[in-house]
Amino acid sequence: MDIKKFVRPNILSLSAYETKEIPCKIKLDANESPYDFKEALKVIKSVKTNRYPDPEAKDFKKLVSKQLGVRTENILQGNGSDELIYYLITTFGGPVLYPIPTFSMYGIIAQAIGEMKIEVPLDEEFDIDITRILKTAKKEKPKLIFLSSPNNPTGNCFSSERILKIIESTSSLSIVVVDEAYQPFASDKGFMPLLKDFKNLVIMRTLSKIGLAGLRMGFLIADEKIINELNKVRLPFNINSLSQAVAVEALNNKKALKSYIKSIISERERLYNGLTEIRGIKVYPSEANFILFKVKEPDKLYRGLLKKGILVRNMKGVVDGCLRVTVGTPEENKGFLNALKKVIGI
Amino acid sequence: MDIKKFVRPNILSLSAYETKEIPCKIKLDANESPYDFKEALKVIKSVKTNRYPDPEAKDFKKLVSKQLGVRTENILQGNGSDELIYYLITTFGGPVLYPIPTFSMYGIIAQAIGEMKIEVPLDEEFDIDITRILKTAKKEKPKLIFLSSPNNPTGNCFSSERILKIIESTSSLSIVVVDEAYQPFASDKGFMPLLKDFKNLVIMRTLSKIGLAGLRMGFLIADEKIINELNKVRLPFNINSLSQAVAVEALNNKKALKSYIKSIISERERLYNGLTEIRGIKVYPSEANFILFKVKEPDKLYRGLLKKGILVRNMKGVVDGCLRVTVGTPEENKGFLNALKKVIGI
Repeated sequence: MDIKKFVRPNILSLSAYETKEIPCKIKLDANESPYDFKEALKVIKSVKTNRYPDPEAKDFKKLVSKQLGVRTENILQGNGSDELIYYLITTFGGPVLYPIPTFSMYGIIAQAIGEMKIEVPLDEEFDIDITRILKTAKKEKPKLIFLSSPNNPTGNCFSSERILKIIESTSSLSIVVVDEAYQPFASDKGFMPLLKDFKNLVIMRTLSKIGLAGLRMGFLIADEKIINELNKVRLPFNINSLSQAVAVEALNNKKALKSYIKSIISERERLYNGLTEIRGIKVYPSEANFILFKVKEPDKLYRGLLKKGILVRNMKGVVDGCLRVTVGTPEENKGFLNALKKVIGI
Repeated sequence: MDIKKFVRPNILSLSAYETKEIPCKIKLDANESPYDFKEALKVIKSVKTNRYPDPEAKDFKKLVSKQLGVRTENILQGNGSDELIYYLITTFGGPVLYPIPTFSMYGIIAQAIGEMKIEVPLDEEFDIDITRILKTAKKEKPKLIFLSSPNNPTGNCFSSERILKIIESTSSLSIVVVDEAYQPFASDKGFMPLLKDFKNLVIMRTLSKIGLAGLRMGFLIADEKIINELNKVRLPFNINSLSQAVAVEALNNKKALKSYIKSIISERERLYNGLTEIRGIKVYPSEANFILFKVKEPDKLYRGLLKKGILVRNMKGVVDGCLRVTVGTPEENKGFLNALKKVIGI
């Protein structure tokens, strides 16, 4: 029996998402927060392991509703944003349009589900090439457009006017998903206020970047009609009881959450300044919890840093010549900058 | 903007999986274990909430490998069996064939993904109608055949010879998934030993029925080539860190696990005998952690039990005239039997 004969052709040509575990002392490769929410784990003792989780994640949605000023009926919970992307493409189908470089899962999941993906390069400033996106949308009629803003791995927010233009001009053609995974670190307030005006707008958020990546808690906010359709394909028990309990406890600790975010933003500035001071490095401005920078010998630098125990992301094949570093604790960032200087030979 | 115009037609005609929260004192509706693994939660303090989970669930797979005598390369972890069904249908497509009545998610997920489902009724003894299944398989060439054994909601194991016949005669046509969610409560050893002989066989297991439903930990065992293809559509971080840690701790406590299962099996016999003693009830033999029984006025009985604080499952529309009761603690089962007698009027 040849298994490959059984497999759908779009899967055959797909590669599994690579997640190598690379030993290191300072881990700055995965856009995680350096701050652990240890104290939130204490609620776990109230969880009954033998009972199925709340399929509606009611407590979690109630809290998100209160904190973001949206109705619970407009919220859908996901096993990370990844699962929400799966549900969006399963529900609305393709083509799936997005600018590149961006978060890799839009394309990977579209291909896994067997829907066409259309990739439009960003412009020189890593902003949306609005003429080309609009032209492509008109021609290809994508069912879904994904816009990650702040964008991973470039770090910048796309111009609000351009995002708005896309939402407006595709309002009878496409669902526009603004992926605000990194919004807590941005200077603007994101696109949530536009939800009332545009029924084709979906906002995606996650707890993964603010200290809770281990929980896999993502959510999206959209018109109730969109939520209702997505709920039909959602696995009824998609969020386990432990993550639900810890997420609620952590979100209730607003003070800690805010202070961690504040620290990451101020450390990002310090890191940015430190990087710009190093000759031969081009640093890109960031509104996220990571910084993209261009160097002459990225592979050599990546390996040199790793030899010193510091793991960053080599963006080879995505943004050639670039490395991406996550903002860590003050000590971690200092360690990274010092190591970088040594490897470069300053 | 009319959202319904955007939604794929197979989703439009789908209803969301209903999970009503019904207040009760004794919860015997969801095939959960009555025994909580509270003690396993203590490991949670070692989890770093800010780091992404191990995408390979290495510790979990290593333990499953050791306990079941299979290689880790043959195991795939899922956010419950539900997610594994999603991945199987996404990877291999349809038609999806299964006998009915059975676990509802095979059909719901096939429809969500947009694949054809073929339902073949079980015979009078709730066993596989082998002639009809083989005929249908030959004609329709299903990519996937799901066989839940012990079967939910009927409780019986399908005849091993019939399952074997299906696996053999479809070996160049179909992937056969034997869903062994309830296998720990069965008198046979399941189909794992057949994996080496049949490359088209997939065994599905879960921790949900043995005290860990809150964790959402399912897994499947199959040929490495099948695992490799499924891994391509698996979301890289599909199992959160908290569930991984607690699952490992709980599985390591083999003594407690075994004693809970033993208690459920012996309570099932007591419950079965108690039910058969009540006039007007037809009780079906069970190899699972629940019992299906037929009564004259199922709706009235269901409501009567609920009034006394006891929640069972009304199987209306699935197996008409039947209720399904999960095996609880000795006290819960006694409470259920007493209430049942009162409601019937004995």
